[in-house]
Amino acid sequence: MALPVVTISNIAAHENQEVELRGWLYNKRSSGKLHFLQVRDGTGVIQAVVFKNDVPAEQFAHADHLGQETAIIVRGLVKKDARSPIGFELSVKELEIVSEAKDYPITPKEHGVAYLMEHRHLWLRSARQNVILRVRATVEKAIRDYFDGNGFTLVDAPIFTPAACEGTSTLFTVPYFDLGNAYLTQSGQLYMEAAAAALGKVYCFGPTFRAEKSKTRRHLTEFWMVEPEVAYMTLEEDMILAEGLVSFIVARVLEKHEKELVSVLERDVSKLKNVQAPFPRITYEEAIERLKAAGHPAKFGDDFGGDEETVLANQFDRPVIVHRYPVELKAFYFKRDPDPRLALGMDVLAPEGYGEIIGGGQREDDLETLEKRISEAHLPREAFSWYLDLRRYGTVPHAGFGLGVERTVAWVCGLHHVRETIPFARMMERITP
Amino acid sequence: MALPVVTISNIAAHENQEVELRGWLYNKRSSGKLHFLQVRDGTGVIQAVVFKNDVPAEQFAHADHLGQETAIIVRGLVKKDARSPIGFELSVKELEIVSEAKDYPITPKEHGVAYLMEHRHLWLRSARQNVILRVRATVEKAIRDYFDGNGFTLVDAPIFTPAACEGTSTLFTVPYFDLGNAYLTQSGQLYMEAAAAALGKVYCFGPTFRAEKSKTRRHLTEFWMVEPEVAYMTLEEDMILAEGLVSFIVARVLEKHEKELVSVLERDVSKLKNVQAPFPRITYEEAIERLKAAGHPAKFGDDFGGDEETVLANQFDRPVIVHRYPVELKAFYFKRDPDPRLALGMDVLAPEGYGEIIGGGQREDDLETLEKRISEAHLPREAFSWYLDLRRYGTVPHAGFGLGVERTVAWVCGLHHVRETIPFARMMERITP
Repeated sequence: MALPVVTISNIAAHENQEVELRGWLYNKRSSGKLHFLQVRDGTGVIQAVVFKNDVPAEQFAHADHLGQETAIIVRGLVKKDARSPIGFELSVKELEIVSEAKDYPITPKEHGVAYLMEHRHLWLRSARQNVILRVRATVEKAIRDYFDGNGFTLVDAPIFTPAACEGTSTLFTVPYFDLGNAYLTQSGQLYMEAAAAALGKVYCFGPTFRAEKSKTRRHLTEFWMVEPEVAYMTLEEDMILAEGLVSFIVARVLEKHEKELVSVLERDVSKLKNVQAPFPRITYEEAIERLKAAGHPAKFGDDFGGDEETVLANQFDRPVIVHRYPVELKAFYFKRDPDPRLALGMDVLAPEGYGEIIGGGQREDDLETLEKRISEAHLPREAFSWYLDLRRYGTVPHAGFGLGVERTVAWVCGLHHVRETIPFARMMERITP
Repeated sequence: MALPVVTISNIAAHENQEVELRGWLYNKRSSGKLHFLQVRDGTGVIQAVVFKNDVPAEQFAHADHLGQETAIIVRGLVKKDARSPIGFELSVKELEIVSEAKDYPITPKEHGVAYLMEHRHLWLRSARQNVILRVRATVEKAIRDYFDGNGFTLVDAPIFTPAACEGTSTLFTVPYFDLGNAYLTQSGQLYMEAAAAALGKVYCFGPTFRAEKSKTRRHLTEFWMVEPEVAYMTLEEDMILAEGLVSFIVARVLEKHEKELVSVLERDVSKLKNVQAPFPRITYEEAIERLKAAGHPAKFGDDFGGDEETVLANQFDRPVIVHRYPVELKAFYFKRDPDPRLALGMDVLAPEGYGEIIGGGQREDDLETLEKRISEAHLPREAFSWYLDLRRYGTVPHAGFGLGVERTVAWVCGLHHVRETIPFARMMERITP
């Protein structure tokens, strides 16, 4: 008789039914006539209880020696159980060993991070990493749902780019046939500006690259970024779009993962529940005043590092938007405020010391002004001739931003280091496994 | 009075209302007391009718000289109009010029492809490219909805990879700090095998790279691929997953874009309506017999090129799945059939000469067999040690496949060349704009 093959995530729908579960042995303990097998299938972990009298003798004896990560199929009855973290356990009638694993390298004891990163292909199976990866997938889906549901068209930006947007020092270089070098993209923004003039509201969402010689807990050489861009949008609307996105993501994660955030990641979710639009907005100059008032040395023109971001963020119960930065701190393509010292840029700072998760603003839409900026910044004009075309033909006010997935996941999950937020982290010192 | 700002795609909801539309002038004609402005906003094109007596005199006179792609805001009344392709037109009360464009480089007349590709940043605005990009976005969303809706977890595969999966000749090389070279991924499959053992059902979806010295109409150096991988899945179930995906994509595209496919791309959609699961399945050996019977020279061991794929595909009214290929034609990681000459691989061939859109199969799950294959293929064993770990610890039958987005979009849209299926195509001879 073929039993229905089910997943642990959906086990509640099969109460008092006989089912088949295909997975791996996560942990076990035995007591004479009973084996308690913790079985994981990638969607969750269930306790499978094997009574000596319920299964053939050799199966019961065999089960006593199974190593962690042995692949097993268990068949049996789904029973409600109030003591179970998932509310159910499986009463096993049949235990099938698919393949035995011996000496699995990652045991429930503590391992060093370097060792775990070297075994990332196996570390992914642990409960904690499993939750983080599923939260990441939820964050990514929430991002897409937000934009797809608001009339945006996904437009994939190219990865190979011909020229440097902001200098070549942090670019990865790729020899490209007879065309010299290509560079791996740091941002799809310029391409999204072209696409916004074609499609109105667009976003790209893909990997971006930064060859920064930096080993901090916030840096990866390869990370995922979503970048919306909207024709006829101003800085004020850009901030509304940004706070809408962030609060949508957090609400979705709480809806799907609140229990796991608490029980597996020990996240204080009360701090996430405050994350609702509108977010407080302060100007850069107000931020400087707030830093000074908090006893932190600061003056107009200073860039904010992690310390300043944390001081500012700690003054609010939800993310804070800082806008209108000194032009010197922002790239050539930012439009200027009527106050010519200021660029129409904005950053969203996450609470709890997680720093900037969004950076963006309104773009310069005037041809002559932009030509002047490119020349002042000593950028190669030829490389930007296509970008200037966007100001020659039908230029309109437009704005957008970039949100980094890994920093967002680190914040939502409450992780110290971004390396756990991406399946296979790439850093200065790591390209394996 | 501030009018509601609306999009053309949603104009039907505003019949007999006064609205504001923000867009660009796509085309125009005039007749004394009337201007007919074709206004596009990225979501569609509407005819905006300007009566001489309805607007200030200087606005009417000005409108006579507006160049293509001039950015304009029109305000007026939405009226039902049976002659309009979208069923509505706008009776203009106020015309605001946001920025004038002169001598737009892409006129309604014919341009060569090289010229258009060089002006890709502007070419995106043309009706045809606009539809193709929106179909691409729909295809990508359909792919994600299919997997998300079937219990899969998105797991982003790394772009930087340390070693060559199938030789280095078609890999792009990136100097990587002190670690020597990294290579840009050609496939996330091996990583998805690790992830499937952690999460059960997974997929990755991102850009992949191939440094092939090839200038055919089917090749890009940078293209997007989705790759599902499922623990405990066999070749037979893999084929069901694949045909389910392809028919889901086509149904979604027809649902959202049938009208545009016909009117803008002149696609014969009747051929798409046949694309429903189940797809016919033939073995490789049957395929050889069919080729011979069709007068096409073929023998066991031959690989299929475009010609063979077209002969085979033309025998069916929907995609056809060819399975169980000679082991020599498939990579080292394919599991073998009980008939040891055959690998448990399958390809899905699209109709109408569009060739292979899916390739996949069941993976070798036995440690010793896989070690032997790696050695026979003269691959560096050290580079695969983490991959072999997946067979050491809890190995299970598993399978998956890869679907190429650009070939799928080319087929669905009926395009001759893949370069129009991606916003900014990267080919051997092109990395700009």
